[in-house]
This record gives sequence, structure tokens and C-alpha cells, in this order.
Amino acid sequence: MTEPKKPEKITLEWIISEMERLGPENAPETVDWGPDRGEEIIDDEYSTLDKEIFSMPNLPTYEDVLAAAGRIEGHAHRTPVLRSRTIDREIGAEIFFKAENFQRVGAFKFRGAFNALSRFDERQRKAGVLAFSSGNHAQGIALSASLLGIPATIVMPEDAPASKIAATRGYGATVVTFDRYKEDRDAIAQRLAEEQGLTLIPPYDHPDIIAGQGTAVKELIEEVGELDALFVCLGGGGLLSGSALAARALAPQCKIYGVEPEAGNDGQQSFRSGEIVRIATPKTIADGAQTTSLGNLTFPIIRRDVDDILTASDDALVEAMRFFASRMKMIVEPTGCLAFAGARQFGPQLKGQRVGVIVTGGNVDLGQFCALVGQ
Amino acid sequence: MTEPKKPEKITLEWIISEMERLGPENAPETVDWGPDRGEEIIDDEYSTLDKEIFSMPNLPTYEDVLAAAGRIEGHAHRTPVLRSRTIDREIGAEIFFKAENFQRVGAFKFRGAFNALSRFDERQRKAGVLAFSSGNHAQGIALSASLLGIPATIVMPEDAPASKIAATRGYGATVVTFDRYKEDRDAIAQRLAEEQGLTLIPPYDHPDIIAGQGTAVKELIEEVGELDALFVCLGGGGLLSGSALAARALAPQCKIYGVEPEAGNDGQQSFRSGEIVRIATPKTIADGAQTTSLGNLTFPIIRRDVDDILTASDDALVEAMRFFASRMKMIVEPTGCLAFAGARQFGPQLKGQRVGVIVTGGNVDLGQFCALVGQ
Repeated sequence: MTEPKKPEKITLEWIISEMERLGPENAPETVDWGPDRGEEIIDDEYSTLDKEIFSMPNLPTYEDVLAAAGRIEGHAHRTPVLRSRTIDREIGAEIFFKAENFQRVGAFKFRGAFNALSRFDERQRKAGVLAFSSGNHAQGIALSASLLGIPATIVMPEDAPASKIAATRGYGATVVTFDRYKEDRDAIAQRLAEEQGLTLIPPYDHPDIIAGQGTAVKELIEEVGELDALFVCLGGGGLLSGSALAARALAPQCKIYGVEPEAGNDGQQSFRSGEIVRIATPKTIADGAQTTSLGNLTFPIIRRDVDDILTASDDALVEAMRFFASRMKMIVEPTGCLAFAGARQFGPQLKGQRVGVIVTGGNVDLGQFCALVGQ
Repeated sequence: MTEPKKPEKITLEWIISEMERLGPENAPETVDWGPDRGEEIIDDEYSTLDKEIFSMPNLPTYEDVLAAAGRIEGHAHRTPVLRSRTIDREIGAEIFFKAENFQRVGAFKFRGAFNALSRFDERQRKAGVLAFSSGNHAQGIALSASLLGIPATIVMPEDAPASKIAATRGYGATVVTFDRYKEDRDAIAQRLAEEQGLTLIPPYDHPDIIAGQGTAVKELIEEVGELDALFVCLGGGGLLSGSALAARALAPQCKIYGVEPEAGNDGQQSFRSGEIVRIATPKTIADGAQTTSLGNLTFPIIRRDVDDILTASDDALVEAMRFFASRMKMIVEPTGCLAFAGARQFGPQLKGQRVGVIVTGGNVDLGQFCALVGQ
């Protein structure tokens, strides 16, 4: 078997075909994502297709999703799949809502966090985990760490909502605040990691996070059978890439769509251009999807396995929140409505199909919820 | 076998022991609840224990709950059982929430309505069903009738919320409004029943309604196993009596508690005195439990099978709504919070127990919801 010639320009397609040919474990000079190399994952500087293949990390596979499912079993909720005949009639399709707003900590983020922390070795467990987030990832890490007896340090801007800081402390984590106008988050991280030997777990660009997030779609398809289409919200791409791994394995014909806020369509631009596009922090009520770029792991999986990226306006998110509350009796945070808003927009194209929609979280302050949906 | 002597004073206990001895079908001169006698069920005049046994109707049994479960299968949702570790920790018990707010039409009422309408004979199906209600029962009847191809007429006060009238019409029912200050509801009913041969299905005091409502607890216990205690909201007693039939059959040791609004504790008074107590319409936010008395069928079952009746204040209901929304991400109407508020109050007595709590409905206007829970 002769080695295929390296092309003049390294494209994503070539990288993927190489990885498929060699198997990820044999891909040349991949980054070691093993447990004692956690700090690697904060490197998100290389991002274009022109980079050499040696900087291309191993991509997680469906085998990793399967392993993650085994690790989280009995710890994460197997969330219910809900239906609404009203929406089935409106769209003319069978819509299956996977209700991750009923997940522990109120969002799918618990899955990836618990999976990642379960893989820590003795030294890492003892030293502890570090995360930056004022959102659902922080709470997922804090609760998982507490369940696994691992100390957790969460770095949050000092102007984060008091309720979120309190909730994260409530799960037993140490919260370190910083002034985001004067202090450098990365410098704080580096100092904490060096001084205390903490392992940083990023919110999406980590193979164990991606594999953990993929377990929701695995459960969905196992429960309802093959799907014709799947809609998943898109921020940094942890959920979408994990979902794509599961859907490609379990429902190979299923069309997979990511849905991101209209105000920040970096994912759509990246998907269509073939390069990771970076944008300024978008202004949207979907605070869980205010990311500025896809990740180095999430992007190639999304490019390979996803069929298209759509966007949804804030108005469409509010309308979806109102629908979920009034007709389905559930509280969904704005970000959690992205997939549904995308499916609704798609409308007539879904006629007669079996459609999965991931409802990702329910962590919205009641005051804010009422300001958005109350009449 | 000699006939036991009829006691000087007819007590409920005696009636029940007679019915157990003879079997309900042999109880002397019972009311025929067969399908062509639907109009009988509007008679709720006889109510005290001193009435003669011949006015004692057949009480439904667990066999009827089983038959109802067969009839509603594939039509009613098998609603999820949800957990909250926060509340488990607070109470020190394992709490299983049966989430009937996710039932069709947003409340358990669909179960009894569909069961009752499924038993109509050809003549009844053709003529149609009649119900009085501006609430969940009306919507349960309207949707069930539409699914079964039965014309439905719902009588509502003309000042009922426009949204409820619209929702009921949306299920295909004919809505007849009346001026509750000038017109007599019963006279309208009688006229409609006579002129059009409609069969009235009352909201709770009907054996098929009771049996249908019992299916929720049957599902709960089948799913989670035996319970030590069960909390159920109490208005007219349809859900509580049906639940008691199911719980007594499937978890004989389980303590069963009804919970009604503090402002209208007729059920508690009736339960403790042994006679149906009637009160004026109570002022409470639990609009689904603004009943003025238990029914002639629901009362004897409750007296026989239930362990106690508790009450909950409107403040406790609002606190429960807030908990459900912020921690469990679900919208529960005030009436739907009664059982949980009761369990919470009970607190330390439940330590170490396995406790079922029926969350009965989610039909609350979003504006009202936000007025109650928003900050």
C-alpha cells in the first residue's frame, strides 16, 4: 500500500480522509489529549485549513460517545422525549423534543463535564479542575466535581449575575472572580494551573466534552428510532459535533442541522467557507451561544458530518420560549430554543418527516423569563 | 349465610362493608351508571351518611382503573416521572413527581374524559356529550370528543377568559355561554339534554371519570415501584379517589394524602366528620380546586382509602410554582402545586421515605404565571 501524495494545499477534506485512512491513533503528530495534557486544550490559535496536519488533533468518534454513555449512566438523567401535537400539525411532521432542560444543572452541559472529569487520573483528581464560565458549563463542572470528590475552581467575571455565582458555589466550587476590564483571564488561568496544578476543562473544544454531549442524541435515537432530520443549537459546537457523531452512527440517512443566533453566524460562515471564522461577541438573548468561533475539534466534525447551519432571530427565540411555556409547560432558556426555532423556520421542507429537536437548557432567571414572554 | 342485621343508623362504614360483602353489582337498588343513564350523574343532592343504602351508587374499583388504562392507551400520554435532588435533600426523602402538566390538554383531566367518552353507546355518540366547565375538564372533554368523533357542547359562563373559550373551540367543541348572574346553568343543561339528547359528563363525580384519573397513579407505581406515601391534589375528589383505588391495589402500605386549598377545606371537614360538608366557593388561586363539596362517589372512596386531608395556603402554592419553574424548569398551574405544597409541609415525617407527588396541570395564562412568580 503506497502512501498517497500530500497535496499542495492542505484541505480539511484531505485531513479527514487521511485520518480515516490511518485511523486517528496513527495520524501523524497529533496532540495528546490524554488526561495529563489538559492544558493543551486552551490552545485555540491554529484554526485555518492551511495549517499542517501535524497540528490536527485526534477527533473523537462514536466509540467515545458510547464510552461516555457508560460513564455518565446513573449520574446524568435520561431526559424525557416530549411531543406536541400542536407543533406536529403546524409543521406537518413528527417532532421529537429531547428535553435537556430537565437534565441535572438544567442543561446538557452536565453530560460532557461529568464525562471529562470521570477520566481524570489520581494526580488530576487530587489537584482539581479549573473552568471559565459564568454559565451552564461552570455548573456542570462544579456539580460533576462535587459528585466525584474533585476540587473545582471556577473563574467568573466579577459582574456575573449574583445568582449564578451563588449557584456555582452551591455545588461546592471555589469561585474566583476577576475584573474583565482590567485583568486577563488567560493569565489568571495560567497562574492557577501552574501554582495549583489544576486541569482546565474548556466548555466545548475537548474530546471528552464532545463525546459526553453526544450521549443526548444517542438516547434520543435509541428511544424513538431513526430520524430524517435533527436540529441542534450551535455555540462553540460541542453539542452539535457530539450529536453528529451519534446521529451518523445510529441514523446514517439523517440530515443534521446546527442553529445559531442570527447576530453571530460565525458557525455558518465557517461551515460554508471551510475555515474557522472569528467574530466579535454577538449581541443576542441566546447567552449560551455568544461564542466567537468554533473549536479546532468541533469544526472538522461539523464540516464533515453536518448538512447545514441555519440561524434564528431573537424574536423567533422569544416566540419559541412562549410556545414551550404555554403549550408544552416547560421553561426553556433562549439558547435552548435555537434548534426549535430553526426547525420551525424550515417548515414545509420537513413535511412527513421524523424530526429530532434538542432542547438544551432551562437556566433562565424567572424575572428575565417573564420580561421576555409575559404579556 | 344469614343476612347481617341492618344497623339502626346507616353509616358509611356499614355501606362499604355491605358492598364488600355483596359485591357492588348486588348492592340493593344501586343507581345504574350504564351508558344510557348519563343524566343520573347530575344528581348530587343525596350526600349524608344517614341516607338509605338504596341511594348508594356502585363505587368504581381498581378493575375499572385497569379497564380505563386499556382504553386510554395510545391516546393519553404516559407522562414522565421527574426527580429533583434539591427537593430530595430538602425533605430527606425520595420524591417522585408524576408530571401530568405534560398530559394532553395540559392536565390529568384528559384521562377521565377520554375514558368516559370511550364508553358511550351508538346513540350517545351520535347525540353528543355535554359538559359544564371553564377549565381543564372542558378541554379534556372537547379533545376526547373530537378524537372519538363525538359532537361536544361545553357550557361556560360568558365572562370566562376569552383564551379558554377559544382553546375549547379550538378542540372542535360548540361553546354555549350563559350569563351567570341571570341564567340558571342547570336549566340550560336540562334543556340541552332534553332537546338534543346530550349526555352530561360531570367533572369528577362519575365512575368512568374516577377510574380514568386513577391511571396516573397506576403508571407512577408501575414505573417507580412501591411508595410509602402519596400526595394528590383535592378539589371534587375525582383524581384523589381514582388515585386511592390504584394505590391501595398496587402499594397497599402506602399512606395516601389529599391536599386542598386552605381557603376551602370542605374535603378535610368532610373526611374528619364523616359527612359531605358544603361550603361557599372558596377564594384561592387554585382555580381547579374551587369546588364546594366532594361527590357522592368520590367521598366514600376517599373516606375509605385515604389517610388524611391536608391544606395548603396560596403563598405555599406560589412558592411551589417558583420552585417548579426555577429548579425543575416546568410550568405548573396553582392547583397543580397543591400536592407538592402538602408534601413539603409534611417535611420531616417523610424522612427516608419513597414519596409520590402528582403534579396535575400546567394550564396557567403566562401573564398570570409571571404576575405570581416574577420578581
